Amino acid sequence: MLVNGKQGNLISIRDRGLLYGDGVFRTILAINSKARHWPLHYQKLKHDCIALGITCPDAAILSNQLNDLLEEYPDGVVKVIITRGEGERGYAPPISGKSTVIWDISPPPAYPEDRAEKGIKAGYCKLRLSNQPHLAGIKHLNRLENVLAAAELIDTEVDEGLLMDENDNVIEGTRSNLFMLLEGTLVTPDLSQCGVAGVQRDRVIDWATRNDMPLQVRDIGQEELLLADELFVVNSIIGIWPIRELDQRRWMDFPVAKQIRMGLDGEYA
Amino acid sequence: MLVNGKQGNLISIRDRGLLYGDGVFRTILAINSKARHWPLHYQKLKHDCIALGITCPDAAILSNQLNDLLEEYPDGVVKVIITRGEGERGYAPPISGKSTVIWDISPPPAYPEDRAEKGIKAGYCKLRLSNQPHLAGIKHLNRLENVLAAAELIDTEVDEGLLMDENDNVIEGTRSNLFMLLEGTLVTPDLSQCGVAGVQRDRVIDWATRNDMPLQVRDIGQEELLLADELFVVNSIIGIWPIRELDQRRWMDFPVAKQIRMGLDGEYA
Repeated sequence: MLVNGKQGNLISIRDRGLLYGDGVFRTILAINSKARHWPLHYQKLKHDCIALGITCPDAAILSNQLNDLLEEYPDGVVKVIITRGEGERGYAPPISGKSTVIWDISPPPAYPEDRAEKGIKAGYCKLRLSNQPHLAGIKHLNRLENVLAAAELIDTEVDEGLLMDENDNVIEGTRSNLFMLLEGTLVTPDLSQCGVAGVQRDRVIDWATRNDMPLQVRDIGQEELLLADELFVVNSIIGIWPIRELDQRRWMDFPVAKQIRMGLDGEYA
Repeated sequence: MLVNGKQGNLISIRDRGLLYGDGVFRTILAINSKARHWPLHYQKLKHDCIALGITCPDAAILSNQLNDLLEEYPDGVVKVIITRGEGERGYAPPISGKSTVIWDISPPPAYPEDRAEKGIKAGYCKLRLSNQPHLAGIKHLNRLENVLAAAELIDTEVDEGLLMDENDNVIEGTRSNLFMLLEGTLVTPDLSQCGVAGVQRDRVIDWATRNDMPLQVRDIGQEELLLADELFVVNSIIGIWPIRELDQRRWMDFPVAKQIRMGLDGEYA
């Protein structure tokens, strides 16, 4: 673990990351001392920091810290957090701009290996995501909605919960982005009002564009989801998981999800 | 500063308070080693912990920790944070229930002393509070909306910013609750969809009830606010600040705000 470039696993109780969730983060899969898609994650970190007015260290500085971490721990789930750092008492952001950078790594995930092939059982969470255009898309540290949504799934057989907004649009999974294949078009929810825009979502969108697959970013209702030819959830750790079960609907084959998964895997073999 | 009862100013980077803002807090005024309205703050802490499923330590344990803190630092702004503690990777709350308790104290606030008498200049923030009934009223650590709202006020002459929800209801200040006196009735915004329910808000409501002042908790629109006979914002640190200026409207006297202020001050002299 690294805090501001030095080995350590502690931060100040006056860090605004703790006090207000005033920071951003990313979760990255590391294999053989290589962090998958690090440049894309850095772009997102930088984008999210700018959106919140947080100083994002240069790519070279973060890359060096990441390499230090991976030298000691070559495999696992890397988490990088950038907070606005410490400041005076009160909500107003300090002018100093001295952000805090935290690196942590956890063991590789222990998900059943056949999920990418056989698909998962999805279900709807009761909690509705709130609309906040100033924070939508940003992977910030205000994640209580995800916590409450994930808590709904404890002791259920649901592998991933889907979240709707207050207008009944399906937005994302508790820890993933969502794609729907409908009559040959790939559709993913619009995230301009709520939700987190993940790196893996961008990669799927990019893949579709490069492979001339029609793509739409728009609102998706619950009923429309059940008409889908395929559904899948994605994130940087799980990759792509097709949905085999949602409500009364079952899906048996996921040829397009598989095609995209193999396409993306091939690019970073 | 205390962390889990021991002197210290550091917490683990794996604490869910940092990772997800998964915790609650309160801010308390301490004078001469006495924390004002501590029993009310404890009630709120307990209520908010229960709402989020976080284990709240017994009152006796927290009171002892508070006394330890005030023995060393008799005056200032006390902050107590209770987080869900550490857990496995992922949003789902751990079963363990081992929460983290953090105490901190800052110097007494340096606000101009005449604000309670002469009133403040208020203004509207552009940011709209998002509706989330599962989190409304709770003083949790997901405070990015307050940070963004407070940032709007930097380099302005506005002493406190008022926040509306997406339906144009006025909800609260960036760091305070709001009251309006309208034709002899005290009105404060309904907080069932968003906002933070402060201890000082409860005290004013309680005072009105005990003093037979008509009171309503309901939605308040921007236009109605300008019709008010008096407006004031409250929190545990500032007490009661009347608003002397909002948009084009000016108020010169605040007899009811003063009456309530002196009533509340007298109760805890």
